[in-house]
Amino acid sequence: MKRWIVSVPIVLLLLASAASAQAPLTLKSMGSFYVGGREVRVTDAPIKGQRGRGAGSLHQVEQMYVQYFIPQDQRGALPLLLWHGGALTGAVYETTPDGRPGWLNYFVGKGWAVYNADAMSGGRAGWAAYPQVFRSAPIFLPKEHAFERYRIGTGPGSYHKDPDRMKLKPGSQFPAEAYDEFAKQGVPYWTTNDEATIRAYTELVDKVCPCVVLVHSQSGLFGQVIAQARPDKIKALVLVEPVGTGNPKLAANLKDTPILALYGDYIDEDPRWPRLLAHNLWFLELVREAGGRYDLIELPQIGIKGNSHMMMVEKNSDQIAGVIQDWLVRQGLTRP
Amino acid sequence: MKRWIVSVPIVLLLLASAASAQAPLTLKSMGSFYVGGREVRVTDAPIKGQRGRGAGSLHQVEQMYVQYFIPQDQRGALPLLLWHGGALTGAVYETTPDGRPGWLNYFVGKGWAVYNADAMSGGRAGWAAYPQVFRSAPIFLPKEHAFERYRIGTGPGSYHKDPDRMKLKPGSQFPAEAYDEFAKQGVPYWTTNDEATIRAYTELVDKVCPCVVLVHSQSGLFGQVIAQARPDKIKALVLVEPVGTGNPKLAANLKDTPILALYGDYIDEDPRWPRLLAHNLWFLELVREAGGRYDLIELPQIGIKGNSHMMMVEKNSDQIAGVIQDWLVRQGLTRP
Repeated sequence: MKRWIVSVPIVLLLLASAASAQAPLTLKSMGSFYVGGREVRVTDAPIKGQRGRGAGSLHQVEQMYVQYFIPQDQRGALPLLLWHGGALTGAVYETTPDGRPGWLNYFVGKGWAVYNADAMSGGRAGWAAYPQVFRSAPIFLPKEHAFERYRIGTGPGSYHKDPDRMKLKPGSQFPAEAYDEFAKQGVPYWTTNDEATIRAYTELVDKVCPCVVLVHSQSGLFGQVIAQARPDKIKALVLVEPVGTGNPKLAANLKDTPILALYGDYIDEDPRWPRLLAHNLWFLELVREAGGRYDLIELPQIGIKGNSHMMMVEKNSDQIAGVIQDWLVRQGLTRP
Repeated sequence: MKRWIVSVPIVLLLLASAASAQAPLTLKSMGSFYVGGREVRVTDAPIKGQRGRGAGSLHQVEQMYVQYFIPQDQRGALPLLLWHGGALTGAVYETTPDGRPGWLNYFVGKGWAVYNADAMSGGRAGWAAYPQVFRSAPIFLPKEHAFERYRIGTGPGSYHKDPDRMKLKPGSQFPAEAYDEFAKQGVPYWTTNDEATIRAYTELVDKVCPCVVLVHSQSGLFGQVIAQARPDKIKALVLVEPVGTGNPKLAANLKDTPILALYGDYIDEDPRWPRLLAHNLWFLELVREAGGRYDLIELPQIGIKGNSHMMMVEKNSDQIAGVIQDWLVRQGLTRP
């Protein structure tokens, strides 16, 4: 597999991460709103578990939640939208499980107007009855799922409740003693709501963009597909270990959108992740062939080792945010 | 029914609400964390809808989410905890459905360190499979529920999708044109999780208090019961139309806790609310007889008319926050 490596001087990265997100944040405003959603009358059956009303009752469904923080001194040229991965909520970008300021605070501290979403079915977005509204039952990921499949532990059987008995990847940056705290961020999720989720995220983009969109894992699909539908609105894409690609037939729609694809450590030794990376690069090569450009940063290649799929909650999360910030600066997306 | 009315000069209220929450907020820190929760191995049955794992899988359940905002210039003597009502999340204290800063911004702007929770089963707290973990099925409230039962509309049949055809209470402060936005805040909820919810809220109190706790509706029970268990930690209680009371046998536990009971308009003409108010006052009278004190403020009695059970999202939400702020000042809970 051919890989494009961006060289970033390590000294600059260290300087960037030294500017701590612990400094006071002066906000011009903060708040929240909902996007998407529709009113549905459930005519075929009573909503499961509902009391007092039978068939024919009215429900508000499929909305999503967005919380925003607008710094007084805006140094991002555009708003920055954070879209989380599956079975998670916007909380993944807030305080890390080991209690440090996360990427939300980092980017607000750098002067970005940040919009942090809870995608459909998770968090403050709520969820709707199945099978009447959502098509399938939810997925409850077991507690060890992320540990064993996201390159935190060494694989199946590596999770243990006692952090001292967990089998971590050698050199892992994951705060193992805070795995319980991380697991608490998990929510039941659906994989059958893509259409409505894309509708709601598109409404968000139409409302607050032009912007930069940062996606992770499951939201990789949403970010790339919506950037293809709104190339005038999404001015840059940061793909943090995305799952899914844009529409290959519309690759040219992204020719003017700078893209960063960011990957952590331990990929080559994993049974699944090389294929996921290759699939993403296959799509990004189509974009490049259509006149676009993208940068692939594999963190170990720039000297940042030990990161899993959950890099935003790991011990060096500020350092990785610094890599993203540096890339955004180089795209001319910050104000002098 | 005997009622205790606190007279608050209207001029002071107007002054308080004029200090807009739109001013920049300088935060010493902001972030989030989880409280409560346990690891459970589901041994009797596979989790409904779960893929890839059968009986015996491990799950993290029953945690709650708390987001906090600590102002640089703290003028509240203690942290202020906001606990939301049933079928809602902490979003109810954020931006109002008609787009104004809500109580969260108001109190942060007044210098309070505010902790805004998502209680068990709602929002970023997530939820667990039933009947394996949660005992019952969730309740999906119909869209018109709040409108018709919370004294926004004139009663059953008063809701209509078209705001012009809604039958609002005369003089209602509810932003009717934003009812859809309000309905989007709703989440499925449970009424069978009280024990675990109280456990998690108690953990929150033990973590961040001494404090002031503000409750609404369903969380009225939680606030009063936990204040009885932690009289040294909860230094004041603001009960916004609470549902449920503390333990009448432990009324004396609240004798040193100043309590504000706050009610909106249209109560006397409602089939349900006079009973709910009377039940709350019955308990508060037990507290008073045991040496405690409470203030009842019925908003119409101090000239603030048109408010429903959802007063924190209504057009005059700042004015009502001002009533609470003024009461807190009078309890000596602010810094000079």
